[in-house]
Amino acid sequence: MGLSAVRSWLTLGEGSTPLVRARRLEERLGLDLHLKCEGLNPTGSFKDRGMVVAVERAVDSGAHAVVCASTGNTAASAAAYAARAGVQAIVLTPAGATATAKRAQARAAGARVLEVRGTFDDALRLCRELSQREGFVLVNSVNPDRLEGQKTVVAEILDQLGEAPDVVALPFGGGGNVSAVALGLAEAGVTARIVVGQAAERATTWASAIRISEPAHAANVAGLVAAGRVEAVTLTDDDLRTAWVALATQEGVFCEPASAAGIAALERTDGVRGSTAVCIVTGHGLKDAGSVDEGDAVTVEPTLEAVLEAIG
Amino acid sequence: MGLSAVRSWLTLGEGSTPLVRARRLEERLGLDLHLKCEGLNPTGSFKDRGMVVAVERAVDSGAHAVVCASTGNTAASAAAYAARAGVQAIVLTPAGATATAKRAQARAAGARVLEVRGTFDDALRLCRELSQREGFVLVNSVNPDRLEGQKTVVAEILDQLGEAPDVVALPFGGGGNVSAVALGLAEAGVTARIVVGQAAERATTWASAIRISEPAHAANVAGLVAAGRVEAVTLTDDDLRTAWVALATQEGVFCEPASAAGIAALERTDGVRGSTAVCIVTGHGLKDAGSVDEGDAVTVEPTLEAVLEAIG
Repeated sequence: MGLSAVRSWLTLGEGSTPLVRARRLEERLGLDLHLKCEGLNPTGSFKDRGMVVAVERAVDSGAHAVVCASTGNTAASAAAYAARAGVQAIVLTPAGATATAKRAQARAAGARVLEVRGTFDDALRLCRELSQREGFVLVNSVNPDRLEGQKTVVAEILDQLGEAPDVVALPFGGGGNVSAVALGLAEAGVTARIVVGQAAERATTWASAIRISEPAHAANVAGLVAAGRVEAVTLTDDDLRTAWVALATQEGVFCEPASAAGIAALERTDGVRGSTAVCIVTGHGLKDAGSVDEGDAVTVEPTLEAVLEAIG
Repeated sequence: MGLSAVRSWLTLGEGSTPLVRARRLEERLGLDLHLKCEGLNPTGSFKDRGMVVAVERAVDSGAHAVVCASTGNTAASAAAYAARAGVQAIVLTPAGATATAKRAQARAAGARVLEVRGTFDDALRLCRELSQREGFVLVNSVNPDRLEGQKTVVAEILDQLGEAPDVVALPFGGGGNVSAVALGLAEAGVTARIVVGQAAERATTWASAIRISEPAHAANVAGLVAAGRVEAVTLTDDDLRTAWVALATQEGVFCEPASAAGIAALERTDGVRGSTAVCIVTGHGLKDAGSVDEGDAVTVEPTLEAVLEAIG
């Protein structure tokens, strides 16, 4: 049974995020476009849907600590639910590769954050090793409880839209969410096209949340692509930035850079005109406010004349 | 009619925020405690409830720009809804007094942000002058459309709780939200105690969102206090910090510092034991992640031995 039906005792109110119409972008793209705003989950990203399930089951199984490797969003989510459950969160991040605000979230909730001199993949390997020990549970998306929670987004979209969409678009980082969405659609008997956007330069992309060289769910996603269920679009950082700016300035939806990958992918997909599309906007812009160009501060004297002159 | 009944065409999904149980804090305080998580509004604060109404009405009246003075949250909200509506947002901030992430939000949405060499009160005076001009509408909370939207939080709390609470606690910055909540409760015929927390050092408090020397709604709040409807509690920065840490580490609710004022005030209020209380947690922790002590980074070699040694 999905979490939409029965709430965990650990709930922070994850899920039930808004589906909002993108009236200005849809005019340009020539389709009906809806944005599923997953950044309005408790810790600011879609990860909370799965994390509440994973941490609850870890605690029920007697764990005294949850462990994860993370570029930031998983860490923030694990830390919040672990704090609420009264267990320790241990987070391993690749040294120097995490957005500051996400690390602050994890620390604020009392997580033990260790920077590993290595890649994300080194950090994940260490977490797997750590979770072999008594009392430690791995809560990365290779934990199947995570995907079970994450797939609830599909039922919500169908409910809010009142019909099955023709296309669902989302980012492809580690592939956990792509797998969860494909699973949710399959279980609902919906054959919508699944369009996913990944960074051309996976190891170095500006969009830090999808800066993952070796996706943990690569094999599953490759299988879905081979079976014609998923269409993968490769995006430059310019593609991502353009879509990210359009979401904020045209629709008022400020997301983190990686979260614009669904829109960017949709723009580069053939045969979507006239369709009904849902883009899953995975994380809040406040997750990575440092990506915004601060520009030159315009400072004025406290007079109406000075203000009028400055605004032209 | 409230927005809970009819959604604006401009909606970003504001409102319908989670009410979550604070099981660990309520044990310490000896009451039933629920947190209304207003940081899960679209731009990360309660301001969105009123801003959608104010911007919609401004546009309907033919405005081509909305203007506001802001320490940050109002600016972020005005910028998002103005972008969505296709009108300009002009934001005046006191120079050097805004949390970075909030300024980034406003800029990301395309707002014109001017730093005024003066106080918040200077900025508000200039906005009032600017809004006398044709086509400019003031969207600070002195605009009554703002309070009409903001009071919808009360109906939601009553609905989610299934009964009237005995106490509602929230921060007291400019007094707009205190006025809106008092109005909402009065209209619902609910006589719950209203407990509000304000900073002892209003001009310089660590909690930047309530760093307001001259509250715009001071006279109204004073009237509510005189009438016995509102109890105001004065808080040190230590009080605020303690409550803020407790919310994050005990309940997994990471809020901005000012948003802990409701809990901090409740802790210093007599006669609340055994009651049912709702704290309005007004803004997300990601609004001001810089307030989190980063501590010393612990960097480890990519081996299990190094990780085990680091976590003790």
